[in-house]
Formats: sequence, structure tokens, C-alpha cells
Amino acid sequence: MCATCGCGPDHHHKDEKKVLDVEQDILQENNLLAQRNRGYFDGKNIFALNLVSSPGSGKTSLLERTLRDLKEELQFAVIEGDQQTANDADRIHATGTKVTQINTGKGCHLDAHMIFHALQGMKLPSDSVLFIENVGNLVCPAMFDLGEKDRVVIMSVTEGEDKPLKYPDMFHSSQLCIINKTDLLPYVPFDLEKAKEYLLKVNPNIEIIEVSCTNGEGLSVWYEWLKSKVLVPFE
Amino acid sequence: MCATCGCGPDHHHKDEKKVLDVEQDILQENNLLAQRNRGYFDGKNIFALNLVSSPGSGKTSLLERTLRDLKEELQFAVIEGDQQTANDADRIHATGTKVTQINTGKGCHLDAHMIFHALQGMKLPSDSVLFIENVGNLVCPAMFDLGEKDRVVIMSVTEGEDKPLKYPDMFHSSQLCIINKTDLLPYVPFDLEKAKEYLLKVNPNIEIIEVSCTNGEGLSVWYEWLKSKVLVPFE
Repeated sequence: MCATCGCGPDHHHKDEKKVLDVEQDILQENNLLAQRNRGYFDGKNIFALNLVSSPGSGKTSLLERTLRDLKEELQFAVIEGDQQTANDADRIHATGTKVTQINTGKGCHLDAHMIFHALQGMKLPSDSVLFIENVGNLVCPAMFDLGEKDRVVIMSVTEGEDKPLKYPDMFHSSQLCIINKTDLLPYVPFDLEKAKEYLLKVNPNIEIIEVSCTNGEGLSVWYEWLKSKVLVPFE
Repeated sequence: MCATCGCGPDHHHKDEKKVLDVEQDILQENNLLAQRNRGYFDGKNIFALNLVSSPGSGKTSLLERTLRDLKEELQFAVIEGDQQTANDADRIHATGTKVTQINTGKGCHLDAHMIFHALQGMKLPSDSVLFIENVGNLVCPAMFDLGEKDRVVIMSVTEGEDKPLKYPDMFHSSQLCIINKTDLLPYVPFDLEKAKEYLLKVNPNIEIIEVSCTNGEGLSVWYEWLKSKVLVPFE
């Protein structure tokens, strides 16, 4: 890896030793704070999910539907990550859910430090669900543990089915893959079986749920998954 | 910015000074090599384009169509960037075009150094067009000049229309935006006029071309744009 963007081993710099040292420091510092966040979530029995994907895969739409459909059954909060704008936070706010926006500026991912600070201001209730919507990016967020319980990668059927092979780190480090926009399957050349085959090749343990936030198909499976993960449901 | 992934100024580390130094070194080194590539392209009258987008926006499909449709009129070569796999290079190779694959491993962008090395092996002809397909990522590639003449950002109508506002650096640093997959407009909630408004807000000088690689709509406009940019057409 190199500084600035975490490049691979093919990438050589004059300052390679210095770069590696700085990166190790940063990832180590991140991992420490991620563990602190994890402990906090455990302490309050908060089920924290880190939602990652390409830009435009439908993370926010999935959250909007989920928050509206399950608000009587579970208690939610959301942290929204974007380079700029509070557009997504506004959309989540409109569902009546507590939401904090983090703008990363030049940054390409959320990190444990940003989440740690956001948590201090949010006063989350115990026995709740926290969705952390990461910056739309299939590369960099893979390296940064936020302290989440589960990482959920969303891919849409309008992207190619070979995304898991092209961005293996992200799919390898996720516990669940949601294949979104299944309503568009008749109009796009997406091979669902191949997509699943590639997913399992990169990560044999990954769970897969197919949904459409437009026609609601498959959402009940996602909701059941979510409820099964929350130890003490909100009453 | 911070090392590892180029985070914004909100992001504080213990080693901030050291991180900034390393980043400056890396970007400065990149800019030097980008200028060298630029000079090489000028010297051989090669029109080099840096294609950037989210994963799955259809960069490779656009290239496949373009290479097949214009192969009698222009001489092409392609550099493909991906974290892993040679899938895209195989697709380009099938069109009969000279192609080199760069796998970035953990890396989230191509840099001028990778292009410099690829060029040494490619023996590109004069008076030709070089497409550089960057890693699918709307954040990190924005910071890395490759020496290209024009940067082309592709967004598809299955992504939200607010992408230019959320990822302003990428759209600000591009000369052309191709809005792809217009054949899917009837099936998705994408506001084309709003998308253009946001694009021009972030970058008043950006040119915009709407295309569908599936039904061919708008491709002639893109082809005319491309041919108008090549000073000495291939004969």
C-alpha cells in the first residue's frame, strides 16, 4: 500500500519506508478506535451495520424503505457518510429517524475516529440498530474497521456481475451481500447466478439477499435477517 | 488529506505533519510523471483520455461499442485499470484493439507512474487515441493526473442524479460527462434535467453527452466529439 490512497504492492515510491510507517500508524490507530466503538455497541446492545457499495447502488433508498417499514418493531439511528452534501441525511431525516451526517471532504471512506466522534453527540438508546452508510466506494472503505457488527455490501443488477472478482477485498470482508434493483433484471444483461457464483468464490461464507426497493420484492427476507440479528427487540 | 486514502481536513491524526509531508511527496512525484506522459502524448500526437466513474457505470461497454464502431476511422489503444482480474482487458482484446491491463491490488486509482511503465511496453503509434479506463471509484482517481488530455466522467441513469454534488472533485476536474444507460430512463427515478443542473453547478465548463450503449442512442454525438478532438485522423 502507499499513502494518499492505499495503493497495492506494484506501486513504488522513493519514500516507501516512510509511507509504510505512516500507513501502519493510521490503520493501527483506526483499529484501536474501532475496538472502542465495538465495545460501546456491545455495552448498549446496539446492532451496528456498516453499509458499503458503489455510488448509486441504492443504499439510501434501501434505508428509507427499511426505516419506514420497521419503525414500529425496531429502534433505529443512522450515520450518513458522503464527500459533500447532506442530501442523504435529509432523506433519512424525512423518515423520522435520528441521523448524523459526516462529510469527508477529500476523503474516500469513513473511519473509526469519525464514528467515535459522531457517537458522542448522538446519545443512542440501548437495544437499537445503527446503520452506518459509508461513502460510495468499493475500494478504500474495505480497509477501515468502524467497529461494526456486520458489514453489508450492496450491489445493484445494473452493475456488472463480476464486481466481486474486481473488488475482492470489499466482498471478502462483508458478512452479507444485498443484490438490489432486481426489478430492473428484465432490462439489463445481468447474470444473477454468475453473480452469486463470483460472490461465493471470493467469500464462501457470505449471505446473499436479493431485493428491489421499487417493487418491494425480497425486502421481507432482509427484514427477517435484520430482526434475527437484534438480540433484544425494541418494545 | 491523510495517508492511506486521502482523507479530508476533518480528519486528524497524531502524525499529521508526517502524513502531510508524505502526501505532498507522492502527489508531487505523480505530477512530475504525469507531465512526462503528457509530453510523450504531445510528441506522438496521441489523444489520451482518462475515463473515470463508479463501478458498473458502463465504461467498458462504452469502449467496446466505440472501438468496434470507429475502428475504420481512428487508431486506438486501451489501458485497463482494475483492482483484480483481466476481465475488462479480455473484453477489449476481443474487439481487436491493443490493450494493457494494470491490476492495482489494494489500490483505488491509477497513477502516472503506472501509466508511464505501461506506455514503455505498448509502443503506441502516432496520431492515435489512447483510452485509459481508471479503477471504478468516484473519489481517489480525482487527485491523480495521469497526463491525459481530457478526463471523461461517466455516470449512469441508474445512479442518483445528485452524484455531481456528492463527489464534486471528480466532476469538477472532468472536461466531459457522459450520461450512460439512457435506455433505462423509463424504469428509474432519474431526473435528467436536475442531473445536468447539478453538473453545471459543480463545473460550468463541463460538456455533457447522453448515450445508451444498448440501443445506440446518442453515440454519434460522442463519436463526433471524439473525432473533433483528434488533430490528425488516422488514414
